[in-house]
Amino acid sequence: MRKQTLWLKRATKMIAYVLVCLPYFVVTAFAQDFYLESPDKQVSTRVDVSSDGIYYQLSYKNKSVINPSRLGFRIKDQPALAGGFMVTDAQSSEYQQSWQPLWGEQQEINNQYNQLVLYLTETQGLKRQLTIYFRLFDDGLGFRYEFPRQDNLTEFAITEELTEFAMADNFQSWWIPAYRDQRYEYQYLKSALSSVDVAHTPLLMENDELAVAIHEAALIDYASMTLRMITDNHKTLVADLVPWADGTKVYTQAPMKTPWRTIQIADKAVELINSNLILNLNEPAELTAKPDWIKPGKYMGIWWEMHIGEKSWSPGKSQGATTKRAMEYIDFAAQHDIDGVLVEGWNRGWEGEWWQRKPTFIFDQPVAGFDIKAVSDYAKAKGVEIIGHHETAAGIQHYEAQMDDAFAYYQKLGIHSVKMGYVGTRLDGNEWHHGQFMVRHFQKVVETAAKYQVMVNAHETIKDTGLRRTYPNLMTRECVRGMEYNGGSPDRGNLPNHTVIIPFTRGLAGPTDFTPGIFNFDYQKNRPNNRVPTTLAKQLALYVTLYSPLQMAADLPENYMNQPAFQFIDDVPADWAKSIALDGAVGEYLVVARQDKSSDDWYLGAISNEKQRDVNVELNFLPKGKTFKAVIYRDAKKTHWKTNPEAIEIITQRVQSDDLLKLTLKPGGGAAIRFVAL
Amino acid sequence: MRKQTLWLKRATKMIAYVLVCLPYFVVTAFAQDFYLESPDKQVSTRVDVSSDGIYYQLSYKNKSVINPSRLGFRIKDQPALAGGFMVTDAQSSEYQQSWQPLWGEQQEINNQYNQLVLYLTETQGLKRQLTIYFRLFDDGLGFRYEFPRQDNLTEFAITEELTEFAMADNFQSWWIPAYRDQRYEYQYLKSALSSVDVAHTPLLMENDELAVAIHEAALIDYASMTLRMITDNHKTLVADLVPWADGTKVYTQAPMKTPWRTIQIADKAVELINSNLILNLNEPAELTAKPDWIKPGKYMGIWWEMHIGEKSWSPGKSQGATTKRAMEYIDFAAQHDIDGVLVEGWNRGWEGEWWQRKPTFIFDQPVAGFDIKAVSDYAKAKGVEIIGHHETAAGIQHYEAQMDDAFAYYQKLGIHSVKMGYVGTRLDGNEWHHGQFMVRHFQKVVETAAKYQVMVNAHETIKDTGLRRTYPNLMTRECVRGMEYNGGSPDRGNLPNHTVIIPFTRGLAGPTDFTPGIFNFDYQKNRPNNRVPTTLAKQLALYVTLYSPLQMAADLPENYMNQPAFQFIDDVPADWAKSIALDGAVGEYLVVARQDKSSDDWYLGAISNEKQRDVNVELNFLPKGKTFKAVIYRDAKKTHWKTNPEAIEIITQRVQSDDLLKLTLKPGGGAAIRFVAL
Repeated sequence: MRKQTLWLKRATKMIAYVLVCLPYFVVTAFAQDFYLESPDKQVSTRVDVSSDGIYYQLSYKNKSVINPSRLGFRIKDQPALAGGFMVTDAQSSEYQQSWQPLWGEQQEINNQYNQLVLYLTETQGLKRQLTIYFRLFDDGLGFRYEFPRQDNLTEFAITEELTEFAMADNFQSWWIPAYRDQRYEYQYLKSALSSVDVAHTPLLMENDELAVAIHEAALIDYASMTLRMITDNHKTLVADLVPWADGTKVYTQAPMKTPWRTIQIADKAVELINSNLILNLNEPAELTAKPDWIKPGKYMGIWWEMHIGEKSWSPGKSQGATTKRAMEYIDFAAQHDIDGVLVEGWNRGWEGEWWQRKPTFIFDQPVAGFDIKAVSDYAKAKGVEIIGHHETAAGIQHYEAQMDDAFAYYQKLGIHSVKMGYVGTRLDGNEWHHGQFMVRHFQKVVETAAKYQVMVNAHETIKDTGLRRTYPNLMTRECVRGMEYNGGSPDRGNLPNHTVIIPFTRGLAGPTDFTPGIFNFDYQKNRPNNRVPTTLAKQLALYVTLYSPLQMAADLPENYMNQPAFQFIDDVPADWAKSIALDGAVGEYLVVARQDKSSDDWYLGAISNEKQRDVNVELNFLPKGKTFKAVIYRDAKKTHWKTNPEAIEIITQRVQSDDLLKLTLKPGGGAAIRFVAL
Repeated sequence: MRKQTLWLKRATKMIAYVLVCLPYFVVTAFAQDFYLESPDKQVSTRVDVSSDGIYYQLSYKNKSVINPSRLGFRIKDQPALAGGFMVTDAQSSEYQQSWQPLWGEQQEINNQYNQLVLYLTETQGLKRQLTIYFRLFDDGLGFRYEFPRQDNLTEFAITEELTEFAMADNFQSWWIPAYRDQRYEYQYLKSALSSVDVAHTPLLMENDELAVAIHEAALIDYASMTLRMITDNHKTLVADLVPWADGTKVYTQAPMKTPWRTIQIADKAVELINSNLILNLNEPAELTAKPDWIKPGKYMGIWWEMHIGEKSWSPGKSQGATTKRAMEYIDFAAQHDIDGVLVEGWNRGWEGEWWQRKPTFIFDQPVAGFDIKAVSDYAKAKGVEIIGHHETAAGIQHYEAQMDDAFAYYQKLGIHSVKMGYVGTRLDGNEWHHGQFMVRHFQKVVETAAKYQVMVNAHETIKDTGLRRTYPNLMTRECVRGMEYNGGSPDRGNLPNHTVIIPFTRGLAGPTDFTPGIFNFDYQKNRPNNRVPTTLAKQLALYVTLYSPLQMAADLPENYMNQPAFQFIDDVPADWAKSIALDGAVGEYLVVARQDKSSDDWYLGAISNEKQRDVNVELNFLPKGKTFKAVIYRDAKKTHWKTNPEAIEIITQRVQSDDLLKLTLKPGGGAAIRFVAL
């Protein structure tokens, strides 16, 4: 077997694409092998193309992470596109460039990778072509397929993507199951990899040497990838694309590029939170400056009072969306640093059990009792944004027929933000939420919203794959079992460890509209069995540990009044210059620091699961020699999420970057800190 | 609503059935309610019978554990048997008696409960009758249904058992999934209850107040109960009986009693290990004394060398089962306190990939190269038992046709023990391993084995439900992901926490043939990626923490030679006078003490997961004032399951019951102690 190795020279400093084209043409009856290293040489991949098929493998620090794993496709009414290839050309290149997201966790992101592009042609039969891109970063691998324009593959249907991930260890894994009715809204399972059945991504795995997460980037006009365990060895995961109702995975035509399959790697799981690999694999936005209608910020809304049974989405006696109530929210927001007010149930069609029937929503007519013009004028006068709401109840046809008008209606009212909803088990009664059908639809939503200058915050939609880089009005999404489950859910709600798992799993995909900020833990009048399983200090800490550019203060205005702790929510920004996950262990604890984008202030959030623990935080993320006033919101001596969640201490002290801060997090507790630059 | 409460008087001391019959006859149009307390009044149940249906609920220390939950059935070609009942009679009674198992974890077991029997008749239509027995113990509830002899329910098919378990909290749960091809052989999932899909029992749940496990007792001629989450609330589990291939759950005829549904409760999960509720709900054996052919003991066998690729089950060059090799095992066993020697692959039919085809096994003909007569004669001369092997490869018809002859053949050879196997994904190609089909078959096996004086150790069979009390030749079973997965499994094997989960979950069902005792951690020649994820000291500790009356020393004789640590395996018994789970947390650590049945010696096992930890063991289980020589097998300073598993220290010290022993368990480590009565 002849081995062909591409050793990539390291460039000293590059500021744009540098293509080191190595024209390649090799004929061998047996195999063609390629080798690629990350810029820091710690991550490496090997690709073998032989008559058997295409196989890649991945190593980190000279240990195998992914053993040889198959690549390819099954195509409807054609032979599989998986073997019998010849590499007709191979190109390697290095890339390094920093870029500035319009908003996000970081003001500047370094995008540095080594790339290998393999141009494959079948040697026999249809002689179809396939191109595969491998990008190796210091924090992992991304690879994608491209179907070039060609005669024997024009319009076609993918019946199976054969991409495998033959994991090299029986990793401890953290996952949510795919193909269940609650979409992504499950608490995470922790198990040996060998016990995984079929999981959504990001799938997090760790052993005592490293942590690895599989996900995807730039999911456009394709089906979402879930990972199914191959049961003959219980260690190889295979891409299981969420199908259309007819069983087809993807309808497409060449030329076409698939989403990137991503494998993020770090020594420890907490370091994965600092990875920008997903964003780096998405295309830059065409915008170069942030339009003024795209604004990260905080919002409140008529919402939690429905979840705790005080109000209803339905019109009538207990109607939540009233002009008066909206104005109360606007008043509170205007008096505080809250940018927007959401009104759920404002439009017509919410009568009764709206989630049980074909949707009846009308998206440009307010319900009786809610004067949208008066409310949006009032908001404008007070300097507060109104956040619209498009709940589709999973009725896509019904919604799309009105979509353009619905966004135009918001634009006319000066509304620049919408919360989307897709409550239901199947779209239009028969399509999964995570197939190409939803991906196409949601793309349409984002583009239509942009046309009418509206930011999107989507619930129950397709998972995040970093498209916010390309479409910067795509702000945040739910796609997680959020705070709402602590309100009205009959299963009593989330466990205390849930929010300590999310940043390591769901959070790797992108911004999470979890909706923190519950201050009143005593809402059991209508919900005798439900609880918010945190302390008040942990609620504050979530504003730092859970990233979202639209961050809700989810409780009612009454519950925030006369609460000194609300000052932290007033202060905390939703857009950051820097973000650093400092320390943590999945499901146990997490400490995150972020620097405000519009000041020199820093913020820190530390959270624990159901256990009390001490965390020692080195403040060396602060600039050296500079003094900060640390305003610390922490659990009190007897604070406990179950028996005494509200007890909080607010203390102030001066700190510098060489200080060590010892924080005691009580059971279900946390700490939130603002470091004011002096 | 009229409430009828049965307060049960506590009897002072009873030695046999005491029936306090309270003849009951109540007519009300609305509801009949019954209340029952455990002997210590800490556990209580309420049963409501109304036109709606039959509902029970369960409380522990005045907190709800199970909210009102439905009882009943769907019957083929009849209306559901679930509502419209009248309680025509209700009987309550108290019971207390100690009994002596022929072998087991305890020499004496206290069986004390309060019982309520409800006799139900439909008020309309078919007027069918149903009787329900509730037994409330200090450690939980058992209830079962009885279909009395009646005109309108004779031969019938159950299409659904409607029994619900509406859990009162979103418990942290430990479970394995049902309806997967590897039967029970999965590593456990840890998740919020709300993320459970469909689980086998025992299902363990815990919160910070209590631990609860759902299982069943006395599963005879019925389908195994799995627990499926109802997705409209994600907290109610419903009995999901494993169906026949035709979809029917149970074929039966009145009179008939179902298995007991069991709910074990304790303050902490570790206390559940001490519960005898499952055994107490099984019928006593008809035997009053232990026949001499039923003998708990230790065994070795030609087995692990196949799993690590040194030998093969197939006849020929690498054949494991040879006369010579068997005699080597017999020699070693005879020189040590090992009672039996298993020979896998001894019979005809193992050629090639036997698990891939219809079974070809012949159960009374040895393979060429294995002289069974010579081997069993040799064993007899050396005082060692031979353990037979019936691998069916899930071919039930093929096996049953030979079964009687096969056991007679063993009896003739003086073989009194058999290991059964049912490798395969479906029985006879189409039946699940856990439906009524297997339950019926396995009952036949146990009864046939008894007829020929053979003890049964079954792998891949139906889960344990305590039937060893009734059938004392039913010794132990696998029904777990055992040691074998550390040998040849392509997924690299079990994680270090696996053996720290099993006693809290699978172990609650009964004896587990996990097969501990691997001393040679360096078997990577043929298995480069596999590992036994423990230290040597932990291997020893497993003999105490994992209960089995037939306990394997799984490694090869060569690997035990010149190993001082083997002394512990020589010494440790397989039958106990007392067993106490002292301390532990699921998946974290466990400390168990047991007293030898044939001496005054005690044994202790302490095990940890992948983390190092110190455990402090109070020795107050030892008799007061008596001095013991503690022979301690413990991890050395630098022992680590991954890098240095063999390092072990054996030290001896004198202890008494008021001593506190501090044990340091290294990562993946443990400690094993023999307390020799002086």
